[in-house]
Amino acid sequence: MKAAGAGQKSPSLGEEIVGRINELAAISETPEHLTRIFLTKEHRAAADLILSWMRSAGMRAHLDAIGNVCGRYEGEVAGLPCLMLGSHYDTVRDAGKWDGPLGLITAISCIADLHKRGRRLPFAIEVIGFSDEEGVRFASTLLGSRAVAGTFDESVLGVKDSTGVSMRDALSEYGLDPDHIGAAARARRELLGYVELHIEQGPLLEALNLPVGVVTAISGATRLAASLTGMAGHAGTVPMLLRRDALAGSAECIVAIEEFCRTDQAGLVGTVGYIHAMPGATNVIPGQVSFSIDIRAPSDSHRKMAVTDIVRQIENIAKRRKLSLQLDVTHENRTVPCAPWLKSQVSEAIAGAGYRVFELPSGAGHDGMAMIDIADVAMVFVRCRGGISHHPDEHVDAADVDAGARVLLRLIENFRPRDAAK
Amino acid sequence: MKAAGAGQKSPSLGEEIVGRINELAAISETPEHLTRIFLTKEHRAAADLILSWMRSAGMRAHLDAIGNVCGRYEGEVAGLPCLMLGSHYDTVRDAGKWDGPLGLITAISCIADLHKRGRRLPFAIEVIGFSDEEGVRFASTLLGSRAVAGTFDESVLGVKDSTGVSMRDALSEYGLDPDHIGAAARARRELLGYVELHIEQGPLLEALNLPVGVVTAISGATRLAASLTGMAGHAGTVPMLLRRDALAGSAECIVAIEEFCRTDQAGLVGTVGYIHAMPGATNVIPGQVSFSIDIRAPSDSHRKMAVTDIVRQIENIAKRRKLSLQLDVTHENRTVPCAPWLKSQVSEAIAGAGYRVFELPSGAGHDGMAMIDIADVAMVFVRCRGGISHHPDEHVDAADVDAGARVLLRLIENFRPRDAAK
Repeated sequence: MKAAGAGQKSPSLGEEIVGRINELAAISETPEHLTRIFLTKEHRAAADLILSWMRSAGMRAHLDAIGNVCGRYEGEVAGLPCLMLGSHYDTVRDAGKWDGPLGLITAISCIADLHKRGRRLPFAIEVIGFSDEEGVRFASTLLGSRAVAGTFDESVLGVKDSTGVSMRDALSEYGLDPDHIGAAARARRELLGYVELHIEQGPLLEALNLPVGVVTAISGATRLAASLTGMAGHAGTVPMLLRRDALAGSAECIVAIEEFCRTDQAGLVGTVGYIHAMPGATNVIPGQVSFSIDIRAPSDSHRKMAVTDIVRQIENIAKRRKLSLQLDVTHENRTVPCAPWLKSQVSEAIAGAGYRVFELPSGAGHDGMAMIDIADVAMVFVRCRGGISHHPDEHVDAADVDAGARVLLRLIENFRPRDAAK
Repeated sequence: MKAAGAGQKSPSLGEEIVGRINELAAISETPEHLTRIFLTKEHRAAADLILSWMRSAGMRAHLDAIGNVCGRYEGEVAGLPCLMLGSHYDTVRDAGKWDGPLGLITAISCIADLHKRGRRLPFAIEVIGFSDEEGVRFASTLLGSRAVAGTFDESVLGVKDSTGVSMRDALSEYGLDPDHIGAAARARRELLGYVELHIEQGPLLEALNLPVGVVTAISGATRLAASLTGMAGHAGTVPMLLRRDALAGSAECIVAIEEFCRTDQAGLVGTVGYIHAMPGATNVIPGQVSFSIDIRAPSDSHRKMAVTDIVRQIENIAKRRKLSLQLDVTHENRTVPCAPWLKSQVSEAIAGAGYRVFELPSGAGHDGMAMIDIADVAMVFVRCRGGISHHPDEHVDAADVDAGARVLLRLIENFRPRDAAK
């Protein structure tokens, strides 16, 4: 295997990465929209292309038991523990082309650059393309990274997709053995750390005019389902003071949640994304309203205190308005803090590349949420236009792609394992 | 034609009315739910039953050109102008049995009582059962009373029901001539006034422990469709201060509308009954929200001022939150004030029957909204349980039915036409 010949003009890291982003984006369920779902034929075609890129970059590469694309670039001697880099290659439906692939392709291009220069480091580097982070097909996220972390829940093998195919059968059809998912698991001693480069999926770096940022933590999240029940009634005949309007009560809760989070100083965000008012007629006072609440913060204790305060406010609003309240936690994710020693190496790489170091939490979930169980985690965020993600308009400027790649390469070349870093 | 023989024990007015309410309620599209829609076979069967009751009460009776059931009880001499009493005999789907029939059947029972006693008055009395007040079938309300008032819009003859049958064809199948709707119209000189007894459809009389009340006006209504557009975004990644959350903005509007109406001292009511947030996912900040606004007041000028103030508040909320606003009036009904001279005769009848006189507006629409074009209008409200209407749980106690009938009969027997009343 050989790197690009000296006679050819090599593209810049950024140019190569953008070219591959576009090449990978062409592998989709339909040509009009980018959709690449776990264990489909386009998912397999994407895996094969990524394997070929890994091999061109001087790596040994294979598919693991859950369909993760795994490449290894040995260090100065074979068999050393590795710095693991990665991201995912599945997408949501009608996706953007950067969410996942940018981190994976950038990591491969960095290795290719080392390989081209014949550079070996005192540790191995592995690049992993996780097979399912988004969880579109089986409504269960982080399947690839959970398998690697050894926390894959085998009960999900029985879950069926919308067409009735179980995950077990889909794995078999793909050529994988559902009874050996455990073979994908890695041991903590094999990993020196896990670093993921990813688009921000938010507007902060753009607002600050910075191409990259260092992530402090992947925010934990609590989701609640709220339902307020009052009394439906005729919009014309029930005087205001005799009403028990479930929508007016819900509106007061939504305003309170927003106000509570707006005045927080520690990165708290709260969102009511779904609301349903019944019966939902113009001339009927709503008798029952359901809505969702999503609360995230970069620290678990802060998030839990916020949830407690918000729940108390909602209870008070319901009580004062004589509405009955049903409030259930439907989902809870712990916060994954980035390891200070690894985060500071990311910061050094950003500063070394000539950019201001800006720290921000990740409000979105990432594979690091699973990887934390076997490795210290850090993340590099790359600016994306308008903060837009999970949408065809998702975009990263080529210059920012190049900036991200230079930061990641600098991080790799200057990486000191935790003990050495102390 | 003869009244009930002296040998039979006559039921009280209230008993007779409740019996007929139940008899009429049995005439329905399905036996499980009360549904009686304009120009259906059950609608016709109901009309025939009402015609028979009118005739038993000593009235000449016929169906008019729009299917209204019309009965006339002559006065001391034939051909005198009439006091018109009435209500409607169509229902909403899965209706209660009192909304409409109570006023119609009570009026017939009052005439029957006069007839039984051989009592003739110095004016005629007509009772009318309007064929379509609810507007379920052709999405156009007050069809029966508009035809009588001469304001029927002939363009609705082309409107089709949900099965594709036009109103024109439905009238023909029913045995009516759609080209002669105009024959149903009455002249102002024929009418001394229009009085309707109806269930309150609201909770005020119950809260005050009164069986009946006198209506001040049928509140006018303005309906608006509001749409706020901000920016959708990831619930985790967009900081609170960078959000343009269309649902939080809508919630603030809903709270403001409620607060504005709650603090009003003149019967203003405001309702947001419908809301739709897009995209409507738990983890996405809503980018667009549509909601309805229904504003009613017993005076047009008060309602219009309120709408202006509410619109200004919504505009300010949208502006401050950088949301774009679309706000359209979708529907507007003028207020129909009850005629003071006729209302005071209702009050006298209530007081004479031994009840406290309580005035209240009608927040719901009624046939008087059309009849105002050819006659002065008054209404008597009868308490209904829990203010519930348009629902199978709609209920009126037999004692309140009797109270309503005694008030209506007293009103008829003491009625003085406007000129005489001065």
